[in-house]
Amino acid sequence: MISNDLAELHEECGVFGIYGDPNAARLTYYGLHALQHRGQEAAGICVKRHHLHIHKGEGLVTEVFSADKIDELAGDAAIGHVRYSTAGGGGILNVQPFLFKTLDGDMGICHNGNLVNANVLKRKLEDQGSIFNSQSDTEVLGHLIKRNYGHFIDRLCASLRELDGAFAFLVLLESGLYAARDKYGLRPLSIGQLPSGAYVLASETCAFDIIGAKFVRDVLPGEVIRIRKGEIKSCFYTRSPKDVSDHLCAMEYIYFSRPDSNLEGINVHAARKRAGKVLFEESPAEADVVIGVPDSSLSAATGYAEASGIPYEMGLIKNKYVGRTFIQPTQELRELGVRMKLSAVHSIVQGKRVVMVDDSIVRGTTSKRIVALLKEAGATEVHVRIASPAIKFPCFYGVDTSTLEELISHRMDVDALCDYIQADSLAFISVEGLSKSVRGENGDALCCSCFTGDYVTKLYDSFDKANKDRK
Amino acid sequence: MISNDLAELHEECGVFGIYGDPNAARLTYYGLHALQHRGQEAAGICVKRHHLHIHKGEGLVTEVFSADKIDELAGDAAIGHVRYSTAGGGGILNVQPFLFKTLDGDMGICHNGNLVNANVLKRKLEDQGSIFNSQSDTEVLGHLIKRNYGHFIDRLCASLRELDGAFAFLVLLESGLYAARDKYGLRPLSIGQLPSGAYVLASETCAFDIIGAKFVRDVLPGEVIRIRKGEIKSCFYTRSPKDVSDHLCAMEYIYFSRPDSNLEGINVHAARKRAGKVLFEESPAEADVVIGVPDSSLSAATGYAEASGIPYEMGLIKNKYVGRTFIQPTQELRELGVRMKLSAVHSIVQGKRVVMVDDSIVRGTTSKRIVALLKEAGATEVHVRIASPAIKFPCFYGVDTSTLEELISHRMDVDALCDYIQADSLAFISVEGLSKSVRGENGDALCCSCFTGDYVTKLYDSFDKANKDRK
Amino acid sequence: MISNDLAELHEECGVFGIYGDPNAARLTYYGLHALQHRGQEAAGICVKRHHLHIHKGEGLVTEVFSADKIDELAGDAAIGHVRYSTAGGGGILNVQPFLFKTLDGDMGICHNGNLVNANVLKRKLEDQGSIFNSQSDTEVLGHLIKRNYGHFIDRLCASLRELDGAFAFLVLLESGLYAARDKYGLRPLSIGQLPSGAYVLASETCAFDIIGAKFVRDVLPGEVIRIRKGEIKSCFYTRSPKDVSDHLCAMEYIYFSRPDSNLEGINVHAARKRAGKVLFEESPAEADVVIGVPDSSLSAATGYAEASGIPYEMGLIKNKYVGRTFIQPTQELRELGVRMKLSAVHSIVQGKRVVMVDDSIVRGTTSKRIVALLKEAGATEVHVRIASPAIKFPCFYGVDTSTLEELISHRMDVDALCDYIQADSLAFISVEGLSKSVRGENGDALCCSCFTGDYVTKLYDSFDKANKDRK
Amino acid sequence: MISNDLAELHEECGVFGIYGDPNAARLTYYGLHALQHRGQEAAGICVKRHHLHIHKGEGLVTEVFSADKIDELAGDAAIGHVRYSTAGGGGILNVQPFLFKTLDGDMGICHNGNLVNANVLKRKLEDQGSIFNSQSDTEVLGHLIKRNYGHFIDRLCASLRELDGAFAFLVLLESGLYAARDKYGLRPLSIGQLPSGAYVLASETCAFDIIGAKFVRDVLPGEVIRIRKGEIKSCFYTRSPKDVSDHLCAMEYIYFSRPDSNLEGINVHAARKRAGKVLFEESPAEADVVIGVPDSSLSAATGYAEASGIPYEMGLIKNKYVGRTFIQPTQELRELGVRMKLSAVHSIVQGKRVVMVDDSIVRGTTSKRIVALLKEAGATEVHVRIASPAIKFPCFYGVDTSTLEELISHRMDVDALCDYIQADSLAFISVEGLSKSVRGENGDALCCSCFTGDYVTKLYDSFDKANKDRK
Repeated sequence: MISNDLAELHEECGVFGIYGDPNAARLTYYGLHALQHRGQEAAGICVKRHHLHIHKGEGLVTEVFSADKIDELAGDAAIGHVRYSTAGGGGILNVQPFLFKTLDGDMGICHNGNLVNANVLKRKLEDQGSIFNSQSDTEVLGHLIKRNYGHFIDRLCASLRELDGAFAFLVLLESGLYAARDKYGLRPLSIGQLPSGAYVLASETCAFDIIGAKFVRDVLPGEVIRIRKGEIKSCFYTRSPKDVSDHLCAMEYIYFSRPDSNLEGINVHAARKRAGKVLFEESPAEADVVIGVPDSSLSAATGYAEASGIPYEMGLIKNKYVGRTFIQPTQELRELGVRMKLSAVHSIVQGKRVVMVDDSIVRGTTSKRIVALLKEAGATEVHVRIASPAIKFPCFYGVDTSTLEELISHRMDVDALCDYIQADSLAFISVEGLSKSVRGENGDALCCSCFTGDYVTKLYDSFDKANKDRK
Repeated sequence: MISNDLAELHEECGVFGIYGDPNAARLTYYGLHALQHRGQEAAGICVKRHHLHIHKGEGLVTEVFSADKIDELAGDAAIGHVRYSTAGGGGILNVQPFLFKTLDGDMGICHNGNLVNANVLKRKLEDQGSIFNSQSDTEVLGHLIKRNYGHFIDRLCASLRELDGAFAFLVLLESGLYAARDKYGLRPLSIGQLPSGAYVLASETCAFDIIGAKFVRDVLPGEVIRIRKGEIKSCFYTRSPKDVSDHLCAMEYIYFSRPDSNLEGINVHAARKRAGKVLFEESPAEADVVIGVPDSSLSAATGYAEASGIPYEMGLIKNKYVGRTFIQPTQELRELGVRMKLSAVHSIVQGKRVVMVDDSIVRGTTSKRIVALLKEAGATEVHVRIASPAIKFPCFYGVDTSTLEELISHRMDVDALCDYIQADSLAFISVEGLSKSVRGENGDALCCSCFTGDYVTKLYDSFDKANKDRK
Repeated sequence: MISNDLAELHEECGVFGIYGDPNAARLTYYGLHALQHRGQEAAGICVKRHHLHIHKGEGLVTEVFSADKIDELAGDAAIGHVRYSTAGGGGILNVQPFLFKTLDGDMGICHNGNLVNANVLKRKLEDQGSIFNSQSDTEVLGHLIKRNYGHFIDRLCASLRELDGAFAFLVLLESGLYAARDKYGLRPLSIGQLPSGAYVLASETCAFDIIGAKFVRDVLPGEVIRIRKGEIKSCFYTRSPKDVSDHLCAMEYIYFSRPDSNLEGINVHAARKRAGKVLFEESPAEADVVIGVPDSSLSAATGYAEASGIPYEMGLIKNKYVGRTFIQPTQELRELGVRMKLSAVHSIVQGKRVVMVDDSIVRGTTSKRIVALLKEAGATEVHVRIASPAIKFPCFYGVDTSTLEELISHRMDVDALCDYIQADSLAFISVEGLSKSVRGENGDALCCSCFTGDYVTKLYDSFDKANKDRK
Repeated sequence: MISNDLAELHEECGVFGIYGDPNAARLTYYGLHALQHRGQEAAGICVKRHHLHIHKGEGLVTEVFSADKIDELAGDAAIGHVRYSTAGGGGILNVQPFLFKTLDGDMGICHNGNLVNANVLKRKLEDQGSIFNSQSDTEVLGHLIKRNYGHFIDRLCASLRELDGAFAFLVLLESGLYAARDKYGLRPLSIGQLPSGAYVLASETCAFDIIGAKFVRDVLPGEVIRIRKGEIKSCFYTRSPKDVSDHLCAMEYIYFSRPDSNLEGINVHAARKRAGKVLFEESPAEADVVIGVPDSSLSAATGYAEASGIPYEMGLIKNKYVGRTFIQPTQELRELGVRMKLSAVHSIVQGKRVVMVDDSIVRGTTSKRIVALLKEAGATEVHVRIASPAIKFPCFYGVDTSTLEELISHRMDVDALCDYIQADSLAFISVEGLSKSVRGENGDALCCSCFTGDYVTKLYDSFDKANKDRK
């Protein structure tokens, strides 16, 4: 769940907002800490105290913020952001929230997701004289709002209508906190409430538990929320309810979110456990032990174990090396067998037929490495079971899945891949199986674009850009 | 397993040693990292490069050592130490290893355990003119060696015979690496070997896996090992084999050690899982879910779940706030319900009868807090099952169990304690059940002093000192 | 010279640029280090390596940049900035250089000075849809350039013509380095050349000495310079040579610049020494010793001593506490006489009539404190001589001189001020005396606005803004 | 004065002590800060609060101590130490003060100076079973005190009688603060008093000024002082007054001490200025400007200027790069002329005949470099005048002067050295001239061992050891 070098997929962001509590910055700090798994590269908090004030930097939440910094951020409303990627370069310039200082007042914006028409909009805005300080999509919303007229809510809705893609936006003004979720429902965003009555917003509900807030409801696809003086108002930015669908990212359930979060009312751990059960039903294996790859596959592995009756054991241990100060082994030491990330537990694995449950395969190198680790530790057979369908297409909605070329399932079918990772058998859950696990038989469709290639939105120049930026 | 504010028991140390590898300091760094759960307050490495060189400091291994510092510690043999406690004060002075500079050459010493006759020996040595720079027991061994005569091995054995209590010592000279384990076998110490042939020593075998070393054997109770130029020699410091017993600390199995370590050939996770099974057999409960308190109780909880057929769920999530830079909630926020350490997962717990499996109860406050957390999250019943017997007596062998007064099981029987923590039922595993879980029906006796009050050694003035030092 | 708590005046910035050297970032680091006295609050470097890359942060140059960060900033051209003030709030947002990412390419800008019509321009630009990320004047230039058309040099000149006030700008493109100096010559900017032929630009020539560059010439008032592939091109942004004057800030000579810098060909130390001589001629004193207030008054004090024949002594010592980590004395300790900043040397001062030479009086509190210090140390008389005229008006050209109300010479004449600081006599150098000291009998006029209130430019809303922002 | 890479001589230590003030640690922090020029490698403070508590580390005072650390060191008496050298290796182990924990109570010791018979004593103590944790001489005193019997003052005096060499010791017990100065008076130590009546001790009086303490008197050669409850008692450790002499290190006056300190009642700046005057009288030069090498030669240079009537100018500027985080120029950049430490001011030096006044020549490389710098900047002649006699012999009393071989004046006479550094003339002050400058015509003899080779003490094995340790 906490991504590190093992991780091959990266969510780009988590957002948190609060309005009407004197400890706004400190509660945002805790909220962002609970969302840390959604982005470890940078963090920022923008607080309202008459005007808006900001502090942001590269690193973990605990590295960017000291107690002194939090104390300086006194105020009664705040938005915060954790960010995975510094992709696009520019370091601190791309760290969110963004704070726009205008002669009419201050505006802070942060964003989880990815706009597919950002470049189209940027070109148009630059042609009109706008100038951008970052490569971030997020800045585009600020410029659109600035160039629209009327009441703020109208300017915001008009601007959102110009955007296409995946987003959960928080916008902080001196006069209120706004939140918006894209009309496809691709990225999650939930509303909670503190005992004091103050409202909070977060990408995942686990951020509510840490601060003692109660879950109220999810922001709906296409909905815009305004929080001011303890009351919530709601409208939809879309022209018609027919424009709205519900395609929450399937990988939020299987990979990104924390097991204790609920997405659209469904507990993530429970969904994963059901996926493990379905995975067993679809692809049973004769084996002695079920082992999950830590951390995000443990729920699915227990589901597989319960359904199969094969005992679940902790056969792989992740070493908890924390932070960028950890001294990595030299190439020489790596060749000599020094392994930092995972250890296989010999006494559990030795002489056993193992079902190894993992959440996904992206490039295939990690799976190959873990199979080898288990066999070196004495496993007689390793049957790999993956709790997500094969990822064959890139994501343009805020997940960093690499280019087509790098996706091994784009190049190989299951049999070839099984050979490549040197497993004794390999199976992925089916798209239907995953949908059923998450939402039951009659659930809405999840976004499964990266498995099927059927994208929820138009793609504009995203395909080209994704492949070009990699070079 | 990684102790933090949830932990009420603390192991005081972990040791690691290596002889005959050009990457000695770096491998020791990785070894100590794997042993970090045994002590997070301070760390040190002493390396041999002609003379001995040392670096040590307060903090985690990754905080004390930078890549530059490790590079400065070039050499082909090393000993290292992680330390929990700065008890006794003095900060950096008590951090190990100790490096003694004598006109005859250098000697580095580090130590896991606690001597029960340290004060008796210190008084005698001071009367003879010795002067101590720390409150550590460990320094005593250095002084005794200095005052004995003959070959080094004879001086070491003569000195060890004067010591009483629990210890695993590593002693590094310019001419070899020595290791010794107390004659009761109270503290663990294992021997491993790298592919290059170099030998390593560690408190737990998990430190071997990370560096690609193979387990060779445990150091035996009363044994002294000398490693030099790729060969091991062994002798016993005791006068007779009859002086030797095998009383490894029971809490090493149930609490301190990492689940992937093997102690005396027994995998810790497997032992814990068996304890969970026995715990169910001894104290079944009618319930809907089994939940383990993270991290060290997860193995026992899966054992309980498998034996009972009740599903195992992740109903409690530990927030991974790392390091001393985390900003703690103010008293005001704590009262408002901000909870940093554990979150209960509402969707799993709500409306359920819960079996909550934990590894131990010391002061009772943590258990009380977790029961409350589960009930607030909607649990209808909470049945607490503890995978260790009730701790009624202090430990004098290197575990920081507090004074008699602080041990709640010294003051209350099980019923009273069940009321105090507001559980619906409470049961501890029996001493016999624990022994059987760990070592099978005919196993040697573990050290169960803290459960039974039958101490393995004489106590000298330890009882008085323990209670006085607390004040 | 190095400002600290003693300092009552603050220059806001120093700039450095280089084009065509493979060590661009590292040389900029050294250049900024030499300019550190011009700004200690923040620093940044923007480097060209195909695109532009940036790193900036709050703190001293040595705090903001590590060797790793400099190595990451590989490239062959760079601009850098040190900044005094975080006035206006926003912390990191206002740190320069600014990097603008446009679809046409990147543009980095940094700036020493202050625009008097910034707000007028911002309002106009916002009305046209621009959005600002900082309170900095510097961003305005970026927006103007973006909104002009044609060759870059034409866009730059057209934009500069819209600006009024004091500035020395550096603008880095992927295709060249541009520099511009305001048409009044208020802020200094010099050109140097490395042995390799690469050109460098800096606010002060002391930045050339540290990197082994030779002084070439000053950028002229109203001049725009383009550096590309080792050659310099020059033009003037003003419509006519008559628009150009030469009013370099007088306080650059007497206070801000390093004594080893040359401004318009005149050595700063030598100018200060001449000012000390003139000060004696205008206001002699009968005394036993001449003492300078460290650091910036030492040159003037030796001038006064030489002219008067009274011996110069080190009667005041500045304690070199460096950085923000220094632990300040508590109020209690301050009252008990703990004095961190200056010590009077008893053995030098005791029983003596002292001439105390200082560079300026702003609020008067520091002077009062130093007179008291000297008297406590046994001085029988203290004659204060100030090497600048009385500062009676605020500066709007980049010096942070506070509001009218805070300027004690705005409220008091010399006699009243002499009483206030409890000196035995007090004299300031005359405006004519200072001009003569700096530039000789027939020199051009310096900018003496803060002494005379005759401002070199229109003021727009600066007066109101300066007083409002203080509140 | 603040030593850095320019410095070729290093004092090893400064000490500070205080008894009977509730802000003991904080005042010690300020005192050590004022003594920072005497040692920049490490610092420590030991405080009395019932027992003794300590914090020490490598780095500047401001780096070793945070406000939190000082707050933890609550107590009413303290000793502190700054240390230049980590020579002898062992890093933190050799940092002072030393804290000895004995069953009879705690004892803290720190020390400025060097014992010439330390090895003789260590050998003897080790033969009796003592064990040393450092290579420091200082530990020896602790062991001797431990092995003597009777009242503490008797044990201390008996121990001091066994020591030979240079020392200023501070010893802190739970019951009082003791200070001792060697019988030759080689190292300075002064007594001061705070307005509250609490006594303080410091290597230099500049530490009194910063905390508002008044100078009381110097500790006398051979004297032992006890401070307890606001009263001072005094005795002599020597058997007879005839054993005592007064040979304060000459280099304390000319090089180590801060100009605002008084040593034995003589102001350091004034002594240096007189040395400059004598230097002119002994070795006049025809020249246009007098330039001092910053920082410690500025006083002598003004003396030379006043005596000669040649104007004193700031022709050399030291760049104030602070701390170990400064990024040094690569070899390539150094060759390209990047010079970090000193800049010559072209406009002052060009076309001038320069008298360059420096305080000492050790290896000659720095002088050679500065002469070259001045000539490159256009000086037509450079006449070097040195305010100390030629250093021909190593110091064994606490100054790190290197081996015989490294002392260029041991190998070359003045003419050869003048050629080597490429000066137009070179002269050193005479030993008599220096003595007269410092103490007047009839003053006691200073320790001039490093100039004359007439050592004040026996040398034991110091000569051999000094040369061996270098290898």
